[in-house]
Amino acid sequence: MIDKLAIIGVGLIGGSLARALKQAGHVRTVIGVGRSRESLQQAKDLGLIDIIAPSIAAGVEGADMVVVATPVGSATSVFQELAPALSDAAVVTDVGSVKGSVVAAATATFGARLPLFVPGHPIAGTEKSGAQAAQPDLFRGRRVILTPLSTTRPQAIERVRALWQAAGAEVLTMSATEHDDILGATSHLPHMLAYALVHMLAQADRGRALFDFAGGGLRDFSRIASSDPVMWRDICLANRPAIVQALGQYQGQLQALTAAIERGDAGALQELFARAKQTRDAAMNDKKGGG
Amino acid sequence: MIDKLAIIGVGLIGGSLARALKQAGHVRTVIGVGRSRESLQQAKDLGLIDIIAPSIAAGVEGADMVVVATPVGSATSVFQELAPALSDAAVVTDVGSVKGSVVAAATATFGARLPLFVPGHPIAGTEKSGAQAAQPDLFRGRRVILTPLSTTRPQAIERVRALWQAAGAEVLTMSATEHDDILGATSHLPHMLAYALVHMLAQADRGRALFDFAGGGLRDFSRIASSDPVMWRDICLANRPAIVQALGQYQGQLQALTAAIERGDAGALQELFARAKQTRDAAMNDKKGGG
Repeated sequence: MIDKLAIIGVGLIGGSLARALKQAGHVRTVIGVGRSRESLQQAKDLGLIDIIAPSIAAGVEGADMVVVATPVGSATSVFQELAPALSDAAVVTDVGSVKGSVVAAATATFGARLPLFVPGHPIAGTEKSGAQAAQPDLFRGRRVILTPLSTTRPQAIERVRALWQAAGAEVLTMSATEHDDILGATSHLPHMLAYALVHMLAQADRGRALFDFAGGGLRDFSRIASSDPVMWRDICLANRPAIVQALGQYQGQLQALTAAIERGDAGALQELFARAKQTRDAAMNDKKGGG
Repeated sequence: MIDKLAIIGVGLIGGSLARALKQAGHVRTVIGVGRSRESLQQAKDLGLIDIIAPSIAAGVEGADMVVVATPVGSATSVFQELAPALSDAAVVTDVGSVKGSVVAAATATFGARLPLFVPGHPIAGTEKSGAQAAQPDLFRGRRVILTPLSTTRPQAIERVRALWQAAGAEVLTMSATEHDDILGATSHLPHMLAYALVHMLAQADRGRALFDFAGGGLRDFSRIASSDPVMWRDICLANRPAIVQALGQYQGQLQALTAAIERGDAGALQELFARAKQTRDAAMNDKKGGG
């Protein structure tokens, strides 16, 4: 049970978490902090938060749990502002899609309080953003990865784990590097591919009219290209090496596939498509089985 | 109204069309032809077809409309088999995702009957295949592109148009070349990109476990990689130049994006993502508005 929860950035993730924890009875009071007074008011009207704080320092004062849910590029400035205002027992966590850069920002700013910071990432979200898109079941059955440092206090990890479990999520731990490599390939790379495709179609002579001839394939494929541009700019900058490596590896795949099409290699094409289908079908069945 | 409709290949598309036309009261009898007796029996049990024909020649005998719904690679052999058995007024159409190669196959095989062949392509489908996946509303509100030749009889075009309209689709005409260019970019390219990504993830050290960390983004992005490998092998071979060109253009996009990430160009990244988001959001709104 959290008595006073401060959420910095009450968007899709922060807002959904607030709502889930309220529904679960896991939190008494939620304080919201954000840059836009208007969207905070909306979050309050929606019942996601109870109190609007005028600043990060004011918001985290007396809070026993602080969740930073702003784009990863703002980690350093947010941490700098909140660190001096934290109460002694406050645990801080974040929801950033990149963990290495967040750990570096925390290490540079939290000083002696670093053992109470638990880096986290819920693998959940939609292409929508903002508090109005918040859903209490956004994390239900989804995974949350925590990437604690060797110095992170076990009790802090347990409190963050309990928070996500109360929201219905399954919690795992791994190193920040491993997280960033895995997400670079499974999340950041597909987002780059979708953005690049839509950008290419937008530049074509026929432009947007091309989408008139799009089937469900393109619609689903390109959904993630409707994601928040600032969030994804920050992710690119924060996870540069892993994303560049994944993009390089992918280009190699595309070159091999293009070569197989050019030489009309029916066998190679069918084998590649069949193996991909088999992998995806099996993975989706696993997921269903696992809930 | 079609008295006797022969469907060659009673899979997702052929089966869904049969069901839609039956529901609309647009057809009296549906004859199914296919390679697998078992799947034809299933289609009959499902009420998609009324009669199972033992061969293409037997199936099209006396039919006033023939729909070829087999993978595009089989067009020539199917056309060769059905052409001599057609009754005089029979109109033939197909549902292939590539039109240039189908037109070439028809031109080479139909002889004097070519004016009664109307090349067509419903932009609809799912990653599922087979008669058991057939849905009567698969074509509702979707587009069907007809690519008639200059010699195609207007009455034949009208009969095929009426068939698709009865299934709830909107019918357009364009040249086979234009069709193949557009679909190469909006459908064939995204399929290649999804197959390549899943293939890359399947080959990774962590292999299938990577999918355990996949959010909804990867799930939707990769859905089309569960499509039928034989169908897509045939599409690749049949629309080679357009697909290779689209892949080349896309590689250029990826190189530019990778370079922007490598040099940490926040402005360029945000602009590219924002333009893509804007294009896709607008296109999806258009689609909603257009029904």
